[in-house]
Amino acid sequence: MSIDLDETHDPDTRTWHPGAQGHPDFPIQNLPLGIFSTGPPSAASTARGGIRIGDDILDLVALAGSGLLSGDALTAAGAAGASTLNHFFSLGPLPRKALRARVHRLLTTDSRHQQAVRSLLRPVADCSMHLPAAVGDYTDFYAGIHHARAIGALFRPDNPLLPNYKWLPIAYHGRSSTIRVSGEPFHRPNGQRKNPVDSGPTFEPCRDLDFELELGVWVGAGNADGKPIPISRASAQVGGYCLLNDWSARDIQSFEYQPLGPFLSKNFATTVSAWVVTPEALAPYSAALARPAADPRSLPHLTDAEDQRSGALDVELEVSIATERMRSGGTAPQRLSCSSTRHLFWTVAQMITHHTSGGCVLRPGDLLGTGTISGPDPAQAGSLMEISHGGRTAFALPDGETRTYLQDGDEVLFRARAHAPGRAPVGFGECRAVVLPAVPLEVQ
Amino acid sequence: MSIDLDETHDPDTRTWHPGAQGHPDFPIQNLPLGIFSTGPPSAASTARGGIRIGDDILDLVALAGSGLLSGDALTAAGAAGASTLNHFFSLGPLPRKALRARVHRLLTTDSRHQQAVRSLLRPVADCSMHLPAAVGDYTDFYAGIHHARAIGALFRPDNPLLPNYKWLPIAYHGRSSTIRVSGEPFHRPNGQRKNPVDSGPTFEPCRDLDFELELGVWVGAGNADGKPIPISRASAQVGGYCLLNDWSARDIQSFEYQPLGPFLSKNFATTVSAWVVTPEALAPYSAALARPAADPRSLPHLTDAEDQRSGALDVELEVSIATERMRSGGTAPQRLSCSSTRHLFWTVAQMITHHTSGGCVLRPGDLLGTGTISGPDPAQAGSLMEISHGGRTAFALPDGETRTYLQDGDEVLFRARAHAPGRAPVGFGECRAVVLPAVPLEVQ
Repeated sequence: MSIDLDETHDPDTRTWHPGAQGHPDFPIQNLPLGIFSTGPPSAASTARGGIRIGDDILDLVALAGSGLLSGDALTAAGAAGASTLNHFFSLGPLPRKALRARVHRLLTTDSRHQQAVRSLLRPVADCSMHLPAAVGDYTDFYAGIHHARAIGALFRPDNPLLPNYKWLPIAYHGRSSTIRVSGEPFHRPNGQRKNPVDSGPTFEPCRDLDFELELGVWVGAGNADGKPIPISRASAQVGGYCLLNDWSARDIQSFEYQPLGPFLSKNFATTVSAWVVTPEALAPYSAALARPAADPRSLPHLTDAEDQRSGALDVELEVSIATERMRSGGTAPQRLSCSSTRHLFWTVAQMITHHTSGGCVLRPGDLLGTGTISGPDPAQAGSLMEISHGGRTAFALPDGETRTYLQDGDEVLFRARAHAPGRAPVGFGECRAVVLPAVPLEVQ
Repeated sequence: MSIDLDETHDPDTRTWHPGAQGHPDFPIQNLPLGIFSTGPPSAASTARGGIRIGDDILDLVALAGSGLLSGDALTAAGAAGASTLNHFFSLGPLPRKALRARVHRLLTTDSRHQQAVRSLLRPVADCSMHLPAAVGDYTDFYAGIHHARAIGALFRPDNPLLPNYKWLPIAYHGRSSTIRVSGEPFHRPNGQRKNPVDSGPTFEPCRDLDFELELGVWVGAGNADGKPIPISRASAQVGGYCLLNDWSARDIQSFEYQPLGPFLSKNFATTVSAWVVTPEALAPYSAALARPAADPRSLPHLTDAEDQRSGALDVELEVSIATERMRSGGTAPQRLSCSSTRHLFWTVAQMITHHTSGGCVLRPGDLLGTGTISGPDPAQAGSLMEISHGGRTAFALPDGETRTYLQDGDEVLFRARAHAPGRAPVGFGECRAVVLPAVPLEVQ
């Protein structure tokens, strides 16, 4: 991914939008897309696409009908007027870039259309956000090598990092039907867990409920014909990025996962942030990943000719927790960890090329997760299994509570931001959800 | 699943349809549904639902408009008039049963509507078949214990059947985007394989391409709310059955599958038969599975109160191969194996209850595979990995060729039939596909 910066990235651009100037997540340099409806979820209007600017949403249905767009920008806004962004993703980069350029211009202080655009803004506080796309298939990678090593040591002390890890981006297929947008609570799963001393498992609510801090990738046009996507064209297949919480039931996972991988331990819920941050918005924050020289060189089809490790991102991610008691007592969320996408072992381009190298079809709006992004330092751990050393070490919260894994009522919040000296920050907004108690299972 | 037989199961019912009387797969007692269009795929008319009778398809759009249906039967036929059966599946068992009863009556010799119904028939030879549903999520189980033991011994000689196997129906999430209907060829996948003596893998066309003989299960109404489906209500969630070939690249699988399970080794293609055989058609062929008394008793939520092992089926399955040379020389396909769904360790009801027990959502038209259905006898092996002992033992074909794994141009055919003394057989039709050569990967 060569960096192709234009006036939409200029940190000195000023907007007439009162709240966007200096907004920590959504300044004029960001312009992410999402699906919103006005009013609360229960009385929601028709869901449709919008672009976030400051604390407002620019209604793309209204914008498409305003006469302010033409050509590719109008095509993109028209596609984003559906109740999902799948059609928008299918268009690929050019219409998306044209829409970004046009909306950017309309929001600058020298736009002649301030009044018209102002009438198309909806306060985000008055809107409900929905899942950005109908996910055809969801794939979760395992590209965070520090997480793979740490969790591997807990499941397989003698064999933490398996011999394939540095040769291919390990992944498994996840569950599309339980992907939820940020803010939707979910129930703690029931499942089979087994204590080492017992002869058989018990079926009961998960005791070791965990989060996994991941970057999500929305697939753009895809490869309907099943033809492998070469690495030189893989970055162009990214439709956008989000935050992703791959909720994990560790006790269920350890009993079920061999030989075919995680199933019930992961398929009860996956939470994604509502805003689709475009590759254009993140273009200034690409960063080469540093592989130790002793690591094997990637096979040719996974090696980018231009720069062996290009197409990687430098996005800072953080996890916080707010227990029910903290929330009701007004205590601010407690930060648990702070990591960066620089700690990934594989780039998103390598994931896409590997994914399609055997003929697998990626469709517009398919979702990829990177895997848990832990760093080399303990303060950069992306899951409670790492933070609590497999549940053995409790940590303290500000109001005197302690945790190893999640309790009912806990809320987990992810945030992420790309920033660099002399640049406006580009944020992802929140990825958050509250854990509800397990549902009793009717036995018959 | 209690057996609830009615006049639609009567083996003595006579139909006026000339080819259906005594048809080996599709007599009047079967009446499976599928999605068809008239003409070849390239010039296909609008795809819509139909019911197979003999070698004809009863056009459900035309039937719904004929005035011959009312009530639930009309609701079901109307839903099946879409280009997928997803909406039909969402209706659950009652409309499906009403449509079956009504179509059965219209086809009997004492129907007053023979002439009208005859005009709604399309010869299957003039039609193209399509995928029965848009699959939201595809799950593949591992419920064939003889296969699990045999293949486990090849991957893990010291540890063939893992400790969880008899406690829960092991499964993994498969790939929806590459599910194909019977008859569509697919390309041999490329992938990373590693010889034990080499330090790293090579990327090349799969050498050990295999089939897996499975029963497929189409999900009916599902649990949109994520509430676990108790075992007593699990069978009612089945929308229908098909044959399923879980094509597998064994060399790619053995390098990639740890720790998260198969990915590229399975996601390049899955083939299903075109006809959805209803639970009603298979009702006379339910059969208790015999678990050895020494095996652990299922946990309460996986135990059917009525009969611990009810809800299992007795369907005979067979696999044949026809190489390119055999097909061009007019040699009949060679049977490789013959097995039965009686050899499954878990019932479909247990799979559904387990799948939803942690809160996972099943949606109408989701697809489940049972896992490879091998029997205890070597002649009942459901994969080439078993038949060829991991590629070490070649077998001969009638024209002098030999095989361990599949070669380009080979066609694999599954057939299945439920039969019992004094009953009309109920067949599944074919599940077949030809292996095409691997696609060269552009490296850049």
